Amino acid sequence: MPQDLVENDDEVLDTPRIDAVLAAVEAGDREGVDALLEPLHPADIADLLEQIGPGERRALLALWSHEIDGEILSEISDSIREEVVESLPPEVLSEAVRDLETDDVVDLLEDLEQPQQDLILDALTDADRVAVQQAMAYPEFSAGRLMQRETVVAPEHWTVGEAIDFLRGAEQLPDQFYHVILVDPRMKPVGYVTLGRVLSARRDVALRDIAEESFRTIEATEPEADVAYVFNQYHLISCPVVDSAGRLVGVITIDDAMNVLDEEHQEDMLRLAGVGDEASVSDGAFETMKQRLPWLVVNLFTASLSAVVIGQFEATISTIVILAALMPIVASTGGIAGTQSLAVSVRALATRDLTQANARRVVMRELGAGVLNGLSLALILGLAAWAIFGDWKLGLVLGMAMIVNQIVAALGGVLVPLTLERLKLDPALASGTFVTTLTDVMGFFAFLGLATVLLI
Amino acid sequence: MPQDLVENDDEVLDTPRIDAVLAAVEAGDREGVDALLEPLHPADIADLLEQIGPGERRALLALWSHEIDGEILSEISDSIREEVVESLPPEVLSEAVRDLETDDVVDLLEDLEQPQQDLILDALTDADRVAVQQAMAYPEFSAGRLMQRETVVAPEHWTVGEAIDFLRGAEQLPDQFYHVILVDPRMKPVGYVTLGRVLSARRDVALRDIAEESFRTIEATEPEADVAYVFNQYHLISCPVVDSAGRLVGVITIDDAMNVLDEEHQEDMLRLAGVGDEASVSDGAFETMKQRLPWLVVNLFTASLSAVVIGQFEATISTIVILAALMPIVASTGGIAGTQSLAVSVRALATRDLTQANARRVVMRELGAGVLNGLSLALILGLAAWAIFGDWKLGLVLGMAMIVNQIVAALGGVLVPLTLERLKLDPALASGTFVTTLTDVMGFFAFLGLATVLLI
Repeated sequence: MPQDLVENDDEVLDTPRIDAVLAAVEAGDREGVDALLEPLHPADIADLLEQIGPGERRALLALWSHEIDGEILSEISDSIREEVVESLPPEVLSEAVRDLETDDVVDLLEDLEQPQQDLILDALTDADRVAVQQAMAYPEFSAGRLMQRETVVAPEHWTVGEAIDFLRGAEQLPDQFYHVILVDPRMKPVGYVTLGRVLSARRDVALRDIAEESFRTIEATEPEADVAYVFNQYHLISCPVVDSAGRLVGVITIDDAMNVLDEEHQEDMLRLAGVGDEASVSDGAFETMKQRLPWLVVNLFTASLSAVVIGQFEATISTIVILAALMPIVASTGGIAGTQSLAVSVRALATRDLTQANARRVVMRELGAGVLNGLSLALILGLAAWAIFGDWKLGLVLGMAMIVNQIVAALGGVLVPLTLERLKLDPALASGTFVTTLTDVMGFFAFLGLATVLLI
Repeated sequence: MPQDLVENDDEVLDTPRIDAVLAAVEAGDREGVDALLEPLHPADIADLLEQIGPGERRALLALWSHEIDGEILSEISDSIREEVVESLPPEVLSEAVRDLETDDVVDLLEDLEQPQQDLILDALTDADRVAVQQAMAYPEFSAGRLMQRETVVAPEHWTVGEAIDFLRGAEQLPDQFYHVILVDPRMKPVGYVTLGRVLSARRDVALRDIAEESFRTIEATEPEADVAYVFNQYHLISCPVVDSAGRLVGVITIDDAMNVLDEEHQEDMLRLAGVGDEASVSDGAFETMKQRLPWLVVNLFTASLSAVVIGQFEATISTIVILAALMPIVASTGGIAGTQSLAVSVRALATRDLTQANARRVVMRELGAGVLNGLSLALILGLAAWAIFGDWKLGLVLGMAMIVNQIVAALGGVLVPLTLERLKLDPALASGTFVTTLTDVMGFFAFLGLATVLLI
């Protein structure tokens, strides 16, 4: 049994190993670096490159770039990929990309600038270059970009024996495939058979008789987010991709769909927080500022709305100064409630649990929850204020403002993303800023407005 | 070719279909309901049950419960699963669970109360019941709960031909399997072979010679979040699960790992927003209030801290009332910056891109970004205030407070989750409340404090 088969679970990327690698790099000890990195999975080596500083990365690559292979390149995050590709000697780059499946080459190319793209395209065999260029002709973030073009197909009338003989005779098979796709004479997929069934059936069984009951295809132009949804919803392992005429052009496997699902989540989470989707911990401070400053500036303006609202009540505040201290409580609790409602709604839109069909019911549910939360919080806050300040009217104003703002928050959290979705915009994009602006403005307005009417 | 093989992509769950189903339910038209639901995938039927209201669901189940099968049950979200299981006649429930693989039965049982669990356990065959009970003996959210116990193994010395003959002769094979796991005589996994390689190799080839180069196992007690990470990081399709002695006890497939990844994301997103992880759009208003009120009450207290801080500056505010209007700008922009830093950090901790190894560098990066953002915002806000109020000192106070609060926000956003992680707590849990409290308090304190010193 080759040594390779022994489990390598111990060989993980941990802090001691990173420190050892950095020490070896500093000592210029190429063999030491080799010995430390060689047992690691390419994904872990890519993580190491992301986690060390830019200077350390340069030194490591200068010493070790000849060992960078295609798998490491395709695992490296976008934020440092360009830097790494630039640092590689052309012959290393050529060899690295030649091992890759075409879908991984496409993934690699997408994030690079033209001159680097050309460098990589030139390194490919003619057949691979054509395949990559065809894939790049599909829109960005489409199924066509995601799929591998290498498929395993069989005419729909074949038997298990014919399929096995064909597979044994095939010169080259994809690295990973889980189904034999049955096609009609015009190359339209009509079903598929899992390899487990092919293996366990007798040779004379017709493939069509052991085909899966449920079968779906994806159009090459469909957005990759829909691909991830379909895989997750229907528990697919692989799915044939067809052109607009329904002919087979490739196949997408679940590991690619899982990757997209993960990226979509990242996008939702970062966009909700008002950060560019590409943000990564390996970015520098200046890069980070560029990703975050735009929404901060937007917020500066929206927050000024609150200032304008408060400014209208200057006379009230100068009469009862304590109002200035109490007003953030109503606004801030509204902000949290809005964020809660928003997170649930954005998530439900992403998983398609919130649709036109139940939008009305969910909005009513939020209204109900807003009223209930508002009443509960109003009771606590109102009584506390009465006890502390000995002024039941102040408690009443705080409580009433709280109820109003909790309702606004709950409704805003669901209506803002629903509206963005209906406008064909990303429901996560900037919803956070909208909703907290809404709850701030309403919180200050309701509290100071009621105070002006009831306390002055 | 059986009709089943024809692609069913048109048969999706959309609003017109939901409306049609509800109309048929209201008319008591059981056949109409059948005709509308029969072409749908079980996952879509489950979604339909989640999206309609509780009354509609009761009516649909009363009319159609005899058609509920195991697959639909295992797709239904936790929030309505108990309700649906309760409404099923015992014989329907028994038949439904008997079709399921044991890992799906476990998944179903986990969220049910004892009497319902017993009902389902009683419905199983003896062998399945033992298998399910063994799985339930593993800790909740562990690999042991997630795995299927049905595995396809071969002695390490077998050839391809022996494996195929064994598979053809096997009485029962798992619904899905992607590898033949090679085991030693003590049932310890030593490698695995993809089915694609088994199919494409000659019969006399030794399995060990076509085994995958990289091979990992997972211990049954490992948390499922780690399972999802390993699948995503190393692009696994299936992974053998072993007991503490290293013996094979089951296998986890990527579709289960993808499901866990999706749930982990949901958890992160909802926890960051201060919502219970189980929140779903099919919950009612009262349920929703119960999930959200706890963090709102916590926030009521933390927001009171801001009020106390502001209260210390009553004299300053009563002298310059405009300060009350301006102070939320500094606090709110700080809140957004904290949320940005927090989202990036929580995400990076989840994907293990932020570790002990680079924590220092990331914190310094946040500090740098905080300074840069603070300077930029201070410039805009300071100049605007000078222009509007004609008071350069007021502009200076706003600008300085902004710089301080941006730095606090950027650092808080990364240090709070890092600290929670080091305390072995979930970094997403309540970080949002902590960080916004921090930025509110610091925002008000810095602004009013500087104003007291410089303007009074």
